[in-house]
Amino acid sequence: MLSGMGTEHEMTESLTSAPAVLPSWRETPSRQRILEFVAVAVAGIPPEDRIAVFDNDGTLWCEKPLPVQADFLLRRIGELADRYPALRSRQPFKAVSEKDHDWLGGAITKHYQGDDADLREMAAGLLQAYEGTTVDEFAELARDFLVKGEHPTLNRPYADTAYQPMRELIDYLVANGFSCYIATGGGRDFLRTVSADVYGIPADRVIGSSVALEYRDGRIVHTARLDVFDDGPAKPVRIWSRIGRHPILAVGNANGDLPMLRAAGGGRREPLRIVVVHDDAQREFAYTAGATEAIAAAEAENWVAVSMAGDWSQVFGPR
Amino acid sequence: MLSGMGTEHEMTESLTSAPAVLPSWRETPSRQRILEFVAVAVAGIPPEDRIAVFDNDGTLWCEKPLPVQADFLLRRIGELADRYPALRSRQPFKAVSEKDHDWLGGAITKHYQGDDADLREMAAGLLQAYEGTTVDEFAELARDFLVKGEHPTLNRPYADTAYQPMRELIDYLVANGFSCYIATGGGRDFLRTVSADVYGIPADRVIGSSVALEYRDGRIVHTARLDVFDDGPAKPVRIWSRIGRHPILAVGNANGDLPMLRAAGGGRREPLRIVVVHDDAQREFAYTAGATEAIAAAEAENWVAVSMAGDWSQVFGPR
Repeated sequence: MLSGMGTEHEMTESLTSAPAVLPSWRETPSRQRILEFVAVAVAGIPPEDRIAVFDNDGTLWCEKPLPVQADFLLRRIGELADRYPALRSRQPFKAVSEKDHDWLGGAITKHYQGDDADLREMAAGLLQAYEGTTVDEFAELARDFLVKGEHPTLNRPYADTAYQPMRELIDYLVANGFSCYIATGGGRDFLRTVSADVYGIPADRVIGSSVALEYRDGRIVHTARLDVFDDGPAKPVRIWSRIGRHPILAVGNANGDLPMLRAAGGGRREPLRIVVVHDDAQREFAYTAGATEAIAAAEAENWVAVSMAGDWSQVFGPR
Repeated sequence: MLSGMGTEHEMTESLTSAPAVLPSWRETPSRQRILEFVAVAVAGIPPEDRIAVFDNDGTLWCEKPLPVQADFLLRRIGELADRYPALRSRQPFKAVSEKDHDWLGGAITKHYQGDDADLREMAAGLLQAYEGTTVDEFAELARDFLVKGEHPTLNRPYADTAYQPMRELIDYLVANGFSCYIATGGGRDFLRTVSADVYGIPADRVIGSSVALEYRDGRIVHTARLDVFDDGPAKPVRIWSRIGRHPILAVGNANGDLPMLRAAGGGRREPLRIVVVHDDAQREFAYTAGATEAIAAAEAENWVAVSMAGDWSQVFGPR
């Protein structure tokens, strides 16, 4: 049904000009509800309280076949395994070194089945990937990867897998006095290196996961310990800790975004909650794994469920 | 010497009008170096890198005879001891209930002598003070206290013990494209409630200590566990974590600010480091306890040591 709708709209769009606001959004109820919410907010909510928060992976940019940062970290694990053969006897160095995709993929599959043992072993290895690196060295490596690293199937660099309709939504909100923040389960210092260029969101408005950092002799360096995994119930806590205000608009795509979505409004204002649904195998990916509860909540509680296939006339911007 | 200088300047100032920029700063080398640094920054550093960080207690407002938040928390401890008599058998509830200033003052004195046992017991009690309170309830109580709570000797509410010259410095920096942040060893969510009104610094630019917060059934509440004590080496780490850039200007007054001061510039730019020296017993307080290393570093390394007595024509603004 959705793909049929998509085709029909594509035909219409080829004959008419795109609207000035949210041009990559088709004229569907999703778009209409966003426009209405923003109009009401502008009329009644002071600018300092117009706070919007966005998850990143799967909400603002593509997270398949692997979250961007997982590729970044696994490549580093491979480099370390090449450089230090002793590492190859343990996971995840062994699997990366031997290109054992079964182990790597299995760790994630088992995680969804409730068995976290392999994923924890992988995470412990990933945490070591940049141990001792300064935040400045890390930023340079991260940015280089994001700008130059090619997505395996979309034929564009990772930084260009951002969804064009979401970039337009952020621009539209900013133009209407909103402050937009990213609350990512991925690495804060990883995403920060491109957030201003890709989304117009400055580094200080990126909230996310991080290894513990340490101050050593005037430099700030990465340790191998996790500081915060910014997902699930940690998201609303970290959002408050960072902003000191309750968002009135929250956008996510996965079950880990549910606490952030539910906490929006802070019990004081009626918020807009948006869940991006990945139903577009043709232009992006179609999947619901890890997202079924979020999608069900959106339907049951009348949030905005954005169909990538139905609501967006284009998914990606120019390369 | 400094007080003599002060008197001379006061005479001059009574005959001439105050300058338009930094009017509460006397025309001393401290003021001159600030003006020169800002001029150079404006000419050569892009606005997004013009980041300034300020400690709060003793740097932006008065921290004597007791840090503001200590008074706030001890009053609450007193209320809890009144309400729950069982608490009165243990510290710090016992000391507050019995007005045992020797125990309370002794905990701090012993801390400076290297014995932290009593201070830890006090801190554990203080952490319990708002357990279970939502962040919104806490914000209301904190703001009420700061706006209405009277400083014990300065004859004005705590929120009005902010130093007028520092408010002018923040305004001056903002007017020159700087982004100003507070990195306080005190409570982040405590100070946030007045930071915009007192300093023009919005809530999301306040970095500081916090109890761990928890997300429970759609609400964000205080626990009795410490999340972060934002002092010493934690300061530069937390500043990076929040901002994602290195400050080029840092202002502190105590030894706990030294890592923040040293980390300024990030090894990439020559920063301006300022240490506020409390040498004005007449208008504020004169003390060096907990600050001797910071003052020594300022002298040895040619940072700007701001003499409250000598460099400021007035300390506090209108009530």
